[in-house]
Amino acid sequence: MVNVAVLGCGTVGSGVADVFRMNSSLIAKQAGREIRVKYILDIRDLSGTPYEELQIRDFALIESDPEISVVVESIGGAGIAYEFTKRALAAGKSVVTSNKELVATHGDELLRLARENNVSYLFEASVGGGIPLIHPISRCLTANDLTEVCGILNGTTNYILTKMIREGISFKLALKQACDNGYAELDPTDDIEGKDACRKICILASLLSGRHIRPEQSFVQGITGVSLSDVKFAESANYKIKLLGRALRTDEGRWAVWVSPHLVPASNPLSCVEDVFNAILVSGNAVDDVMFYGRGAGKMATASAVVSDVIDIVASAPRVLNDFWDGDGSDITCDSAAIPSKWYIRTNDQSLAAALSGQTVLRNTSAKASEAAFITKKAYNRQALDTLIGRTVPLSLMRVL
Amino acid sequence: MVNVAVLGCGTVGSGVADVFRMNSSLIAKQAGREIRVKYILDIRDLSGTPYEELQIRDFALIESDPEISVVVESIGGAGIAYEFTKRALAAGKSVVTSNKELVATHGDELLRLARENNVSYLFEASVGGGIPLIHPISRCLTANDLTEVCGILNGTTNYILTKMIREGISFKLALKQACDNGYAELDPTDDIEGKDACRKICILASLLSGRHIRPEQSFVQGITGVSLSDVKFAESANYKIKLLGRALRTDEGRWAVWVSPHLVPASNPLSCVEDVFNAILVSGNAVDDVMFYGRGAGKMATASAVVSDVIDIVASAPRVLNDFWDGDGSDITCDSAAIPSKWYIRTNDQSLAAALSGQTVLRNTSAKASEAAFITKKAYNRQALDTLIGRTVPLSLMRVL
Repeated sequence: MVNVAVLGCGTVGSGVADVFRMNSSLIAKQAGREIRVKYILDIRDLSGTPYEELQIRDFALIESDPEISVVVESIGGAGIAYEFTKRALAAGKSVVTSNKELVATHGDELLRLARENNVSYLFEASVGGGIPLIHPISRCLTANDLTEVCGILNGTTNYILTKMIREGISFKLALKQACDNGYAELDPTDDIEGKDACRKICILASLLSGRHIRPEQSFVQGITGVSLSDVKFAESANYKIKLLGRALRTDEGRWAVWVSPHLVPASNPLSCVEDVFNAILVSGNAVDDVMFYGRGAGKMATASAVVSDVIDIVASAPRVLNDFWDGDGSDITCDSAAIPSKWYIRTNDQSLAAALSGQTVLRNTSAKASEAAFITKKAYNRQALDTLIGRTVPLSLMRVL
Repeated sequence: MVNVAVLGCGTVGSGVADVFRMNSSLIAKQAGREIRVKYILDIRDLSGTPYEELQIRDFALIESDPEISVVVESIGGAGIAYEFTKRALAAGKSVVTSNKELVATHGDELLRLARENNVSYLFEASVGGGIPLIHPISRCLTANDLTEVCGILNGTTNYILTKMIREGISFKLALKQACDNGYAELDPTDDIEGKDACRKICILASLLSGRHIRPEQSFVQGITGVSLSDVKFAESANYKIKLLGRALRTDEGRWAVWVSPHLVPASNPLSCVEDVFNAILVSGNAVDDVMFYGRGAGKMATASAVVSDVIDIVASAPRVLNDFWDGDGSDITCDSAAIPSKWYIRTNDQSLAAALSGQTVLRNTSAKASEAAFITKKAYNRQALDTLIGRTVPLSLMRVL
């Protein structure tokens, strides 16, 4: 019998408890031992929920209970969750989490602490929700030199963009529908401004590079500036606009990490990823591209990944599974502006339009007559692009995948 | 230092040796130890290749060499490969393979033999080439009751169907182009008649059910009967024709396993999988659907999966990793004809067309005036469908996903 403590009985925490109950015999078979949720820590009153009997309010009980070998941290944020994770690891307990903010901010320290205490710190659910991703990258593509990862990492923004593309509605209206349908947080800022996707791409970049790459080392642009006009110009040339998180290693061995809306061609499998789904493309020098697709969020999908991590710890003991990355990576990154790509440019400035007339011209019959949009024929880094564009600020500027 | 022997220096075997050479330091880091290919067994003369120094012709050398702890079987087929695999396992050596025929035919016996000898028998590369699939299903979705798998498992047929859809050419011409471009075997029978996909879906069905399900227990229909007319009728209703391998558990707990061409709606991510790519959807009761996508064949992609399995064995020793399935599953399957679905029916028989006039009628402006095609509005199992159709044999009959 293995005893687990769940910290926080919100969406993810209660989902984890639900999955342990729903699939208990199957989980026991997979893990080789029965797994029981012994405590659920929450400051809110859980009376009337199926978990009121398990509720405790004092973390010290978990910390000092030798029966607890795995702690599920589903509090979120980098505050008290950070403290409890450190204390649990220091007490010799493995920790499993879906907390991307904590992993992106303090992953290197927590991984080191886990190693020092010969326990695991696993976070499959922190990127891509229920999609197996961190484990396959770190355990199944090991024969490859992995040089690039590129993904749709945020379901809310993908839902909004899908609505804009499919129904021809504005960003503002699509955001409202996402809120109404429960696909966006009460405060959707972190989603629509790209911060959530940024935490996730930083975790993946750390995984690929072997060093901790932080959100501050990346460039972030959200989707608030994407207009219906952009969507239609893109469509006319068989592209879809997607918010992508990207991390790639340059020929000089440095990692460029960024989040920004891109024009994705119909031939790329990411262009087919719609609604709240996530998908992540990983490129290796033997396997070429592989893609992982599924629900990037949601109670049960996220819980699936958390519980699978718990099973992995129980089934693999005493092997330590947290050999993901080590040490600060601030010396191995570079500015994403240095990465060349083709660019999409929309403008209502006649002289800029004239200067771009040699590029590929896009057609959008519903656009204002004063507007024109282009895709550059060659790849430019940001500096070279600025030279091409000159001083005029375009209405819209996006990379083309 | 870990020593590996490679059996067969064909496409996969030489790819494995190439990957070990190309990524040697990275592989040593991942495995925690250096891994060396010590022998390559082949009856053909390897003089002039980079591997002539390693060539041996006598399997007994490998069997009796205590330095060899892992054997890569890349001979193919279920003949001598079967004998050598048994002898290697019996000699206490783990075996890694991409040989779907051998796994689909004798997997239960070889897995048992591996367990008895406390070694591993791994075959990630046998399904989906380089796509991590068997490992994620068996190790990362463990919190789920997995009830269904559905996939595009054969690159050659997907290439042919993509050509037919995209270029509007006939099956015969598309097959010729696949042969000319090296995407089809010299004898493409196993591909186009669905046998290759059948071996792979049987491996996945065994994985999900925990019992060995054999090709003889499944229904197989290839793509030789798919006409350009079907492709166009399907297109008119926003479907693409794909050869799918499917395994699903009925409410009675039995597994239906089959391969047949399906009409896949544009809203399903499998409809976007084109050319030689493979993709596999897995459904679990917590995670919902997840999809794995990538190159299902090819020298380096397949070698990537084989070498990653070798690394897994070396890094995980002495844990045995082969707890996939156990025992014969002939008592847990059922006839796929019992599974209800909507159906696509094409006919040139006036009375059948009249009988189907209440179903959804498809339009194809380029079809012969005498032909009509329908999609049933409700789901039918095969028996109920036969009642609906009566005695007339339709020109074409396919399930709708």
